[in-house]
Formats: sequence, structure tokens, C-alpha cells
Amino acid sequence: MSATSATVTVALEGDRRYDIAIAAHSLQNLGAKLTEIGLGKKSKKVLIVSNPVIYKHYGETVATTLKNAGFDAISLILPAGERFKTANSLQKIYDAALNHRLERSSVIIALGGGVIGDMSGYAAATWLRGINLIQVPTSLLAMVDSAIGGKTGINHPQGKNLIGAFYQPSLVWVDPQVLQTLPTREFRSAMAEVIKYGIIWDRELFDLLAQCDRLDQLRYLSDDLLHTILYRCAKAKAEVVAKDEKEGDLRAILNYGHTVGHAIESVTNYRLFNHGEAVGLGMIIAGAIAVDMGLWSAAEQAQQVALITKTRLPQTLPADIDQAAIIDCLATDKKVEAGKVRFILPTAIGQVTLSDRVTTELINQNLRKILA
Amino acid sequence: MSATSATVTVALEGDRRYDIAIAAHSLQNLGAKLTEIGLGKKSKKVLIVSNPVIYKHYGETVATTLKNAGFDAISLILPAGERFKTANSLQKIYDAALNHRLERSSVIIALGGGVIGDMSGYAAATWLRGINLIQVPTSLLAMVDSAIGGKTGINHPQGKNLIGAFYQPSLVWVDPQVLQTLPTREFRSAMAEVIKYGIIWDRELFDLLAQCDRLDQLRYLSDDLLHTILYRCAKAKAEVVAKDEKEGDLRAILNYGHTVGHAIESVTNYRLFNHGEAVGLGMIIAGAIAVDMGLWSAAEQAQQVALITKTRLPQTLPADIDQAAIIDCLATDKKVEAGKVRFILPTAIGQVTLSDRVTTELINQNLRKILA
Repeated sequence: MSATSATVTVALEGDRRYDIAIAAHSLQNLGAKLTEIGLGKKSKKVLIVSNPVIYKHYGETVATTLKNAGFDAISLILPAGERFKTANSLQKIYDAALNHRLERSSVIIALGGGVIGDMSGYAAATWLRGINLIQVPTSLLAMVDSAIGGKTGINHPQGKNLIGAFYQPSLVWVDPQVLQTLPTREFRSAMAEVIKYGIIWDRELFDLLAQCDRLDQLRYLSDDLLHTILYRCAKAKAEVVAKDEKEGDLRAILNYGHTVGHAIESVTNYRLFNHGEAVGLGMIIAGAIAVDMGLWSAAEQAQQVALITKTRLPQTLPADIDQAAIIDCLATDKKVEAGKVRFILPTAIGQVTLSDRVTTELINQNLRKILA
Repeated sequence: MSATSATVTVALEGDRRYDIAIAAHSLQNLGAKLTEIGLGKKSKKVLIVSNPVIYKHYGETVATTLKNAGFDAISLILPAGERFKTANSLQKIYDAALNHRLERSSVIIALGGGVIGDMSGYAAATWLRGINLIQVPTSLLAMVDSAIGGKTGINHPQGKNLIGAFYQPSLVWVDPQVLQTLPTREFRSAMAEVIKYGIIWDRELFDLLAQCDRLDQLRYLSDDLLHTILYRCAKAKAEVVAKDEKEGDLRAILNYGHTVGHAIESVTNYRLFNHGEAVGLGMIIAGAIAVDMGLWSAAEQAQQVALITKTRLPQTLPADIDQAAIIDCLATDKKVEAGKVRFILPTAIGQVTLSDRVTTELINQNLRKILA
């Protein structure tokens, strides 16, 4: 692995595989890469799906590199934000696919963060029962998490990601340079997922982060450290996904902090916290529960909290939050089995276990501890 | 294979497999079978999706057998007909899944024909990114074709089956007894698909049918012949699907008669012909094109037409049909590659080939031949 470019290969069941290619200033080479991996042979048609801000910054670069490589691309700009990850936005992608006459061998490019990636991925999974998908994540969260692993989907009015499919991209194309335009709040919330990989899988990554004084803004990270973070997170996720593509027990560990996190997001109507912020809170609660259950040391939980502090992620819940609604929400979580909520709990930094023995009382108790 | 019960196993990539179980009067044993294949261990919840007529005849039998086996089932009745295979109906299945709190280990049972099977299958494929699916086909068409092979989906306002997923059921449960309530027109149109298997894969089946005097009503078929038809068709489809789950070249042969058939259905707004009738017309045209191109003998085409005559399927198109619209519609077909329409053409009874050399002129010429 060089300091400026690296490739992680995701090897799946059968002989299916795809690359996560990480290289600064690589966005302008995307068209040539598509040709290199065999796209454009049968159909030259490409549909780029993006949001207004991202497209303003990077749309022309992507459109140009595709044109130079001989592709016939059109762009669809959808409004930004989780509340637009709906059946309605999905229908717009389908309509664009129909109007541009995409064929099975055509390509959808998701140019954006998690919302664009999830929706476009789901559209690619389901249009003509599956066409080629390229993920070009432009947020740190999408780079380290949502663009890798094949989870795609949209929200149901009553729950996040309830509708979806496992569908792998042909390529994940990561240009760290695009993070320069990422808002600070987005950066911080993605750091929650980065810390997550340290806790569940990669102690070395955790230690590397612990050596930094500040983790709350991109400018405090050297190019090398940023590259290492992107590489190690992609590698961690690829390893987990390769071993367990469709959410058996292993893949479930990626949901560390997410069980309670999702409930917090949902109960606060996805307005108060973004995904990463909620995951950060979920990790604090899961860690505290693990300590209470005697599974994890208080010292390591303190190390986790210290790292979260360096990112300046929120560490408290509104005093008037509806705790009963959080508990109820946990019961409708996708990860529920036989009516029991399954928690991912740390046992050491770099290692977690699954437990369905977390009591409602224990959850409530630890929610109360972090009320503002 | 006994005369009254038979099982065809569909073996897929990896170690995935499922059974197509064919047995008269078996509907009442469905609950026990679900337990036998390991469902109900984690979640007892089942959502039965059906249409009003089918549910009136068989709903109680299914609800009772599930209850007796300890399942917690609710039913959702959706309006019958291709025009209801929409995003709107799909949303109703999602809402029922949410209200009944289906978990990943819960089950959706599709109790009905192709429309119910396709929609429920797609809902099962996409709810929580995939839950268990049982196909209980109640039409001959669904038994020999749509319930087997994992194609699921809904229609886009501008085209049939444009939105969908490949998703395999855990079981296909075929009780030929339920065909007693099948309308004659439905029976006939399914016979088009039965004849299709004879042409593309199973000469013995073709010869067996050719020995019958009449094929236009269920009552002309002995129980043995009906069973043999169901078994041989399921076997043919299972063999093709096992070798090619996701529509490479081999699976494409299942679309014999469908290329033009879909276009005819679409141009006549899905009102004049049902699916099987359109496929029958498509087979007549594909056969005639194959003869014109020197790929097939006129004598065997005559045998195909003779068999279609025995089913009393329509053999002519309205004189004022919009031929240009049919040609245009072919260009948006899912099977289009590099802008070329791919035809499946017979070379002998039991054998077909793929061709992208069929000219528009040849299509038009053969459409004209069967104008009323």
C-alpha cells in the first residue's frame, strides 16, 4: 500500500469480486477505469445520480471523464437529505432510467453520500432486476461505510431502510480530495463509524486515532492518516462482508452502536442527530451496558469515550427524550429475532460479542445516564 | 416419480436449494411442511398475500393449516389483475409487513397466480432486505412458470416487470387440485407456456401433448397427464434456472415467444390479450421468422401451430394493431443488448438458438401474416 493510492478487493461467494480503489485526485480518471473493468462494451449509457451541492462541485469532472471515455451519460439531481430517501425519489431514478433507455449492461453511478448511494444502489438492484452500479462516495461516512458492502435501500414512512436489497457495486471509487468540501458536522459524524471499526475489528486503527490530539476537523488529519483511515476502514468492512455477505452473525457486528442509534434517530424524527451522531451515542450506551454486564472493562469504555470526545460528537440526549418510544422502536428493528433485541457489545478494543440478554431496565438506566 | 406426488429440487449456486413439491390435495399440509423445512423456529409470523377469488376458495384451508402448525398468520387481500401489479399494491404489502411486525425470519406466502406471486415475491425480496418466501401458485401459469425461478417484480407505468429482483423462494407448493376453479381462458393461456417448454427443452413433452385431441380445457386432461405436465415443466424450468440463475444466455431461452409477446401485450394495453395468449402469438411469429431465416423446418412450425390450435389460443392480431408501436416497444425490452433485439428462435422441436440478426422487416412481415 502506497501512501497515496491503495486497492481493497472485496471477494464474495462464487467468483464475484470488486475493488475499492482509494487515490487522491482520481475522480478525473473514472471514465478510463470503467472501460478498464469492462463496462461500456455492450451499452455506453450511464445515469449519474447526485445531489445539488455535490453535483455543483464534482458533476462536471465526472461528466467530462465519462464523455472522454466514450460514454453517453445523463445526470439526475435529487434533493439532499435523509428525508428524501423515499419511494418518490426512487421513482424519479426509475423514470430517468426509462427515459435514457438504460439496458442491463448500462451503468448507474452514485455520486454522493449515503443517501444517494443507498437509493441509487437500490435503483440499480431493481431496475430490469439489476444493472451495473458504481459507487463514488463523496462523504467520509459513505467512503468508510455505506458505499461498501452492498446494502442498498430506501426508507418506509415509518422506519429507516425497511425496504432494500443486498446488491454489490462493480467498483467503489474513492477520491479523498472531495472531502475538502465536506461540512464539519458530516466529518465528525463519520468519525463515529471510524471509531466503530477500531472497537469491533481493528485495535491498531483505534490506537492510531488515540495518538491524535484532535479528530474534530479534517484539517487536523495528515494526508497519510486520512489515507490510512480510509484504507483500514474499507479493509475492515470488506473482510467482514466477504465472510458474511447477507447479515449473518458476523456481519451483524457492523451494527455496533446502531441498534440504539437507529432508535434515537427515529424517536427524534431524524432532525436532532444525524446518523453518525446517533451511532456515537449508541456506542457510548452499548459500551456502558457491556461494562454493566461485566463483559467489558470500565477503563476501555473510558478510552472509547475519550476518542469520541476528541471528535466533538454529541454525548448527551435531550432531557425530555421519549425513552419509552426508544424501547418500542428497538422492538421493530430489522435485527430483532424472535422478539428479542440483539445487542453488539464490546469485550475488548478490537473485539465484540452478540447478546440478546440486554434487559429493558439496563437500556433505560444507561439512557438516563446521558440525559442532558 | 409417482403418479400423484413428485418433487423437483432447484439447485442453485453455492449450496442454496429449494423444492418444488407437486401433490394433489396437499394444500392442507402446508403448515406442517413449513415446520419441516425449518420455518417458524425464530419467528412464527406469516403474511399471506392473495386475491379475493383465490382467498374465497382456498384462504381458509391455508389459514387453518398454518394455525394448526402454530404459526401466527394474517392475510392481505389485493385486487386481482396485471393492472394492480404496481408500486401502490407493493406499498400495501409493506404496510401489512410493518403492522404485523414481520422479522427477517418471518414468512410471506404468495397464494395466487403470477401477479400475486411476482408482487409478494418482490416484497419478500426487499422487505428488511429479504425475508422468507413461499410460493403457493394457484394458476397453471404460475405452477409451470412464474412461481419457479426467482423472478419477482412489479410494473412501471410505462412497462411490465421493469422493476424487480431475482429472489428465490424457500419452497414452491403445488396442489393441482386448486386448478379446478381456474377459468378456462387462464387454463388455455398457460398452455402456451407448457408448449413453450416442449419447443425449447423437452421434445418428449411436446410429443405427449401432440397425442391429445383437445388441450383447450382442463377436463380433457387426465390426472396423470396433468401431473406429468406440471412435473416436466417444473423440471425443465428448474434445470434451466439451476444452470443460469440470473439470465445469462441459457436462461434467455425461457423467453421464447415472449419478446414479441410482451410488445403485443403492451401495445394493446394489456387488455386484449393476457400473458399466455400474447406468448402464443409470439411463438407463432418467432417460429415463422425462424423458418424464414432457414433455421427451422416449415413442417415443425406447422406442428407447433397445430398444438396451439388444439388449445384454442388466439392466432390472429387485430387488423388495426399499431405495428410501428410494437417495433418501438421491442427496443425498450429488458433483453435488448447494445440496441439490438435478441430473438429466441427454434431450430428443432426441443431446441432453440439466440439471434440478434432478426430484421425489423422480417418482424413486420410476419406480424402482417397473422393480422385478422
